[in-house]
Amino acid sequence: MERVFNFNAGPAVLPLEVLAKAQKELLNYNNTGMSVLESSHRSKAYEEINSQAEALIKELLSIPDNYRVLFLQGGASTQFAAVPLNLVKPGSHADYILTGTWAEKAYKEAGKFADVRVAASSKEENYTRIPGLAEIKLSESPVYVHLCSNNTIFGTQWQEFPDLNVPIVADMSSDILSRSFDVSKFALIYAGAQKNLGPAGVTVVIVRQDILESIPETIPTMLRYDIHAKNDSLYNTPPCFSVYMVNLVLQWLKEHGGLEAAEKRNAEKAALIYQTIDVSSGFYRGHALKDSRSLMNITFRLPDEDLEKRFVAEATAQGMVGLKGHRSVGGIRASVYNAMSLEGCETLAGFMAEFQRKNG
Amino acid sequence: MERVFNFNAGPAVLPLEVLAKAQKELLNYNNTGMSVLESSHRSKAYEEINSQAEALIKELLSIPDNYRVLFLQGGASTQFAAVPLNLVKPGSHADYILTGTWAEKAYKEAGKFADVRVAASSKEENYTRIPGLAEIKLSESPVYVHLCSNNTIFGTQWQEFPDLNVPIVADMSSDILSRSFDVSKFALIYAGAQKNLGPAGVTVVIVRQDILESIPETIPTMLRYDIHAKNDSLYNTPPCFSVYMVNLVLQWLKEHGGLEAAEKRNAEKAALIYQTIDVSSGFYRGHALKDSRSLMNITFRLPDEDLEKRFVAEATAQGMVGLKGHRSVGGIRASVYNAMSLEGCETLAGFMAEFQRKNG
Repeated sequence: MERVFNFNAGPAVLPLEVLAKAQKELLNYNNTGMSVLESSHRSKAYEEINSQAEALIKELLSIPDNYRVLFLQGGASTQFAAVPLNLVKPGSHADYILTGTWAEKAYKEAGKFADVRVAASSKEENYTRIPGLAEIKLSESPVYVHLCSNNTIFGTQWQEFPDLNVPIVADMSSDILSRSFDVSKFALIYAGAQKNLGPAGVTVVIVRQDILESIPETIPTMLRYDIHAKNDSLYNTPPCFSVYMVNLVLQWLKEHGGLEAAEKRNAEKAALIYQTIDVSSGFYRGHALKDSRSLMNITFRLPDEDLEKRFVAEATAQGMVGLKGHRSVGGIRASVYNAMSLEGCETLAGFMAEFQRKNG
Repeated sequence: MERVFNFNAGPAVLPLEVLAKAQKELLNYNNTGMSVLESSHRSKAYEEINSQAEALIKELLSIPDNYRVLFLQGGASTQFAAVPLNLVKPGSHADYILTGTWAEKAYKEAGKFADVRVAASSKEENYTRIPGLAEIKLSESPVYVHLCSNNTIFGTQWQEFPDLNVPIVADMSSDILSRSFDVSKFALIYAGAQKNLGPAGVTVVIVRQDILESIPETIPTMLRYDIHAKNDSLYNTPPCFSVYMVNLVLQWLKEHGGLEAAEKRNAEKAALIYQTIDVSSGFYRGHALKDSRSLMNITFRLPDEDLEKRFVAEATAQGMVGLKGHRSVGGIRASVYNAMSLEGCETLAGFMAEFQRKNG
């Protein structure tokens, strides 16, 4: 069996060049006589991987000098607790914008440890869209306003980040490094790697350095951003192989033109599928409103659930897997992260047109 | 360059057969058309890996039915906080036995969240030995007594686990699956994988099920054992590739005779090096007292630091790496986990004898 087109929402497809490189050096990394899987995190070889990966993220995202990049464990779900525990002091509070399941989870978890308030929500509309600037009602002096840049389940994405005059904290798990943006608007950004950055098992945190100066010592040490920053993400044994894979993905991204080129490719890829939806005369119905459409996760329904099941089954038989939508939306979800090829999107768009011709 | 003998304390050597299998299927796992690195954690392929790994740990360690095995993130350092947060309720307390750096760290971290007391310590003797049963002074009705089964830095190991009539919680990061023991003495066991179990990035937790019934809901969700148990370690995206590697290591261990055979190999391997120390007329001086010697980490000094530096340099030149001792002990540390071959230990013992002959 050949490699399939993997439309899974995450863990997700990785660049074939990256996998081939990892495979080639799996028994002997860079002439060390051992695998990265066996390499001490205190070795020169691993320290280079760790610092290269931080430097590449800074370079690709044009991150200002007053930010640090950390490689942590536990996924975005751990950050849901870490963010309020690190940032919200007694007597202060934070705002949350609810645009989907994960934004809601972040809000609920934060509520266990801090005074948190909802600044905007599109829940009543089953999260079909991103709230407009006028809808965002900030509280008085929140420590931060939290948002989720791309909503994997509902297929919506902030087209641009709002100017709120309040530091933003963002969960960018499902669209980091898919486009360029102004990092200086953010106090903190976190992202599980398993969509655009690499395999599961590592979480990237980008944090403004001044925040590190007032972290409470009472919270679990492993949740403290200052401890990890001071130790260059080597306070304890890091998830070395996942960081190594992230570093390879970053190199691949740079070699293929960086964020500008990635953004162009992603727009082109997503357009192929959205156009197929838009010309289908309602056979395919997108879940997201047009002005909130995600370039990463494309969600749509078919006329009935039987057709949706056949769509998934026939696509799978033709080597396109992971297309079943999340139960909150139903239907189909095509996740087309950085590593999904144009060919994969062309193949899917072609299949969609053909499926409509036969069943429409 | 060929593969070296890797005596690092962790991340550590993995079985070559395991690495070769991972390499072979890195682009296409089990005919899925994708790498395990890209596989959805909700896929049948990954769910099989996850449940196989749990079943194999249960089988190899003869774990009673009233225990669960979890695959978590964050290393033992995260468990240092998770254990007291999950287990110690207000008004109750726990005891800690201090036998090295990591046991001390567990005690200090627990002290941030719970009333904890020292039941025994060999710190005054620079942790050269494991306290005897008579030295362990338990407090009245502790929730648990915490110990570290093997002290990576100092090279000491509990030869057998004490009968204390109190549930034991143990950090077994550096000797789990190196020998058989009675799991029913323990309320909870945790182990970072990167020594005997697989690569860094996953932590195994073995927990008695009744404990899961009274976990406080106020602690961070990602630290809650009940949440992870209820979701079969799939509450959020797990470190899939690390769990996959652990599963391969477990299969390898089973194919090579299970724990009984591993214990025999480990005793034979360590004996080669300890014998070389013991017949050296004081040229090599073991750090651990004889009755506390670890079969996993062998720590020793040479007559002076210059000789120690030359020892490390010449060993490295001959393809034996990772032998520099931790700064708390100095000198040499040879870590000889399950995956270190008898040949590796023979080569090191031969080198030690030759080095003494030339420099003694």
